[in-house]
Amino acid sequence: MVKEKIRQAIEICKEKEVDVWLTFARETTSSPDPTLDLILGTSCTWASAFLITAKGDAIAIVGSLDVQNIKDHAPYSVIGYVDSIKDELIRTLTLNNPQRIAINYSTSDVMADGLSHGMYLILTDYLKDTPFLDRLVSSENIVSALRGRKSTAEIKLIQGAIKETLEIFDKVTAWVHTGLSEQDVAEFIRRHVQARGLDYAWDVAHCPAVFSGPDTAGAHASPTARTIMPGHVMNIDFGVRKNGYVSDLQRTWYFMRRGETDAPEEVKRGFVTIREAIRKAAEFLKPGVLGWQVDAVARNYITDAGYAEFPHGLGHQVGRQAHDGSALLCPRWERYKDLPYSVVEAGQVFTLEPRLTIEGYGIATIEEIVLVTSDGCRFLSTPQEELLLIAP
Amino acid sequence: MVKEKIRQAIEICKEKEVDVWLTFARETTSSPDPTLDLILGTSCTWASAFLITAKGDAIAIVGSLDVQNIKDHAPYSVIGYVDSIKDELIRTLTLNNPQRIAINYSTSDVMADGLSHGMYLILTDYLKDTPFLDRLVSSENIVSALRGRKSTAEIKLIQGAIKETLEIFDKVTAWVHTGLSEQDVAEFIRRHVQARGLDYAWDVAHCPAVFSGPDTAGAHASPTARTIMPGHVMNIDFGVRKNGYVSDLQRTWYFMRRGETDAPEEVKRGFVTIREAIRKAAEFLKPGVLGWQVDAVARNYITDAGYAEFPHGLGHQVGRQAHDGSALLCPRWERYKDLPYSVVEAGQVFTLEPRLTIEGYGIATIEEIVLVTSDGCRFLSTPQEELLLIAP
Repeated sequence: MVKEKIRQAIEICKEKEVDVWLTFARETTSSPDPTLDLILGTSCTWASAFLITAKGDAIAIVGSLDVQNIKDHAPYSVIGYVDSIKDELIRTLTLNNPQRIAINYSTSDVMADGLSHGMYLILTDYLKDTPFLDRLVSSENIVSALRGRKSTAEIKLIQGAIKETLEIFDKVTAWVHTGLSEQDVAEFIRRHVQARGLDYAWDVAHCPAVFSGPDTAGAHASPTARTIMPGHVMNIDFGVRKNGYVSDLQRTWYFMRRGETDAPEEVKRGFVTIREAIRKAAEFLKPGVLGWQVDAVARNYITDAGYAEFPHGLGHQVGRQAHDGSALLCPRWERYKDLPYSVVEAGQVFTLEPRLTIEGYGIATIEEIVLVTSDGCRFLSTPQEELLLIAP
Repeated sequence: MVKEKIRQAIEICKEKEVDVWLTFARETTSSPDPTLDLILGTSCTWASAFLITAKGDAIAIVGSLDVQNIKDHAPYSVIGYVDSIKDELIRTLTLNNPQRIAINYSTSDVMADGLSHGMYLILTDYLKDTPFLDRLVSSENIVSALRGRKSTAEIKLIQGAIKETLEIFDKVTAWVHTGLSEQDVAEFIRRHVQARGLDYAWDVAHCPAVFSGPDTAGAHASPTARTIMPGHVMNIDFGVRKNGYVSDLQRTWYFMRRGETDAPEEVKRGFVTIREAIRKAAEFLKPGVLGWQVDAVARNYITDAGYAEFPHGLGHQVGRQAHDGSALLCPRWERYKDLPYSVVEAGQVFTLEPRLTIEGYGIATIEEIVLVTSDGCRFLSTPQEELLLIAP
């Protein structure tokens, strides 16, 4: 996978007219640069430079004791140093004489922002007497393309994680009943994750997140001791990590009261509004549209139906991380910086996850995962078509 | 633990004359700031600010959907936002009017360098029309004190990880024999880690690292298929994570040849040189000495005995991470920046890990863990006094 991603990175450097893409990192166990998951697949200790060039080279300059480990993991020409990385780094840059050097900082995209400010200061100090200082640019368009354009192998791995997640949701549906707490449901899911030898897609404190009934905690909160009661809407936000790739999905259940054979009209209307918002957004999603435009399709559909707008973006990319960075389907809010203006490309994998509150019942959410194709998108998850009804 | 560390951070802000210590981070699952392990204990999603003040306040400004999760994990006054963090951040700073604001960047200490360059650009852009822009300083002395000064509870946790590691080393000694590969030995250790429900202290690709015989790979390399032979010196570098704290220890074995009842003189001399280098360094180590001075005691002892100097520092701090950052016992090499000049303080926990090559046999190493006390240091690990001899 690392080999394939390095090859892809070389092509992207050519396309984006970047001569050298330089990842500069240290102690990546405690301070990881997210791009190293893609182009290295192991950790480094001392200040290390990974250079991928438009000419087709991949060069690593690392502390001498790290040399063997880097060689074992990735196809770099590896140069070791003892005292300082500075001379080898400048020598290597001088040999290549790049006109544009991309480094990993970005105000918008966390996945392209792996360079710490201290490492930035070190790098610019090293380069201060060279012509290279003025040739530094952000790598955000490289990282965005490299993470975003999933290979066939990567899509298969995401599908593997989705399949496990949907199977566990089915187990929940078959087992869940009123009288349990949110924590009981989370515990049930965690037992299945462990039995299947999977990892969690995000922080286990809120993976799964389970919300039942009106007045629940917000998203990203841990499951509580609150008891699931008849008349509650329950939603779960959950994903697994399998073979390095993750899923991120949500489903909505309704717990019928004695005498009910279906959910009340207002619950059904809330659920159907979410389902249709996703359907409309998916119909609109294709290469060339902007992130905020896709978000607006779902957002407006929900507000037009009389509900409040959701306080987050419609969808994010999924891959090695649940929030895989770069192009985002989100409103033009300051907190999202330039991401609402990102152009959708084929090969990107997005969640679609609007939300609304059904007053007196709870939160309705569905989160699906779609792959952008050459002329539209297709669902990688089997969409939730009907509210999951639990008999009293 | 988070509560205790926030209280400690408030005291350290007073001592270092910093009015506000600001941790500014986002998407910390993929892009963690190492200080959040200490002062938060969970992750955050959107741009988030954690302010600890010399006046005794702890304030978090986070995306609205993260509010509940932050409240559940740490004793902050939590402010949520939807559109942008900017206004709340400036409002909070204005209320406190700090004269010195410490932020997490450092050229020397990776643990104080959690602020990405992109986040630095965002922060300085937010502050550009305020008096606060000129009041930003590095938090490295705060982070160094906060991570370095271990509480009694933290020392107990480190001791717990050390105990497990030494027990597993004992299992290795009782079981290991010639004819096994380095990978076999690593696999044996991993089975014990799993059976005990422990985690690895660092990247499992080289935790444990196992080196046998002459011409081995460098440190930090993965175990190989190389067969352990009579006459080999073997060393293992290994640590576990237990309850959030880690160990990092090394031991040396000698595999006797048929007819031998002890190791050859040159092997014993190499081992004893390492043992005595550690003893001398430990005798020298106390509050007030500089990191490079401690390193020099062991380094000079080894070169005076006629061996080449080791290509790394004598010791690093251990805590939540195997390389826990800040004050380091290391030579005055450029790659270590200001760290050789750090002043040793009581409460710090260091490894002592010199190394030398015994020509024709392998690498001799011992790595112990010591706690700096008010007037010296004491061993938290039971030191290796004798070469571990394996009968043929």
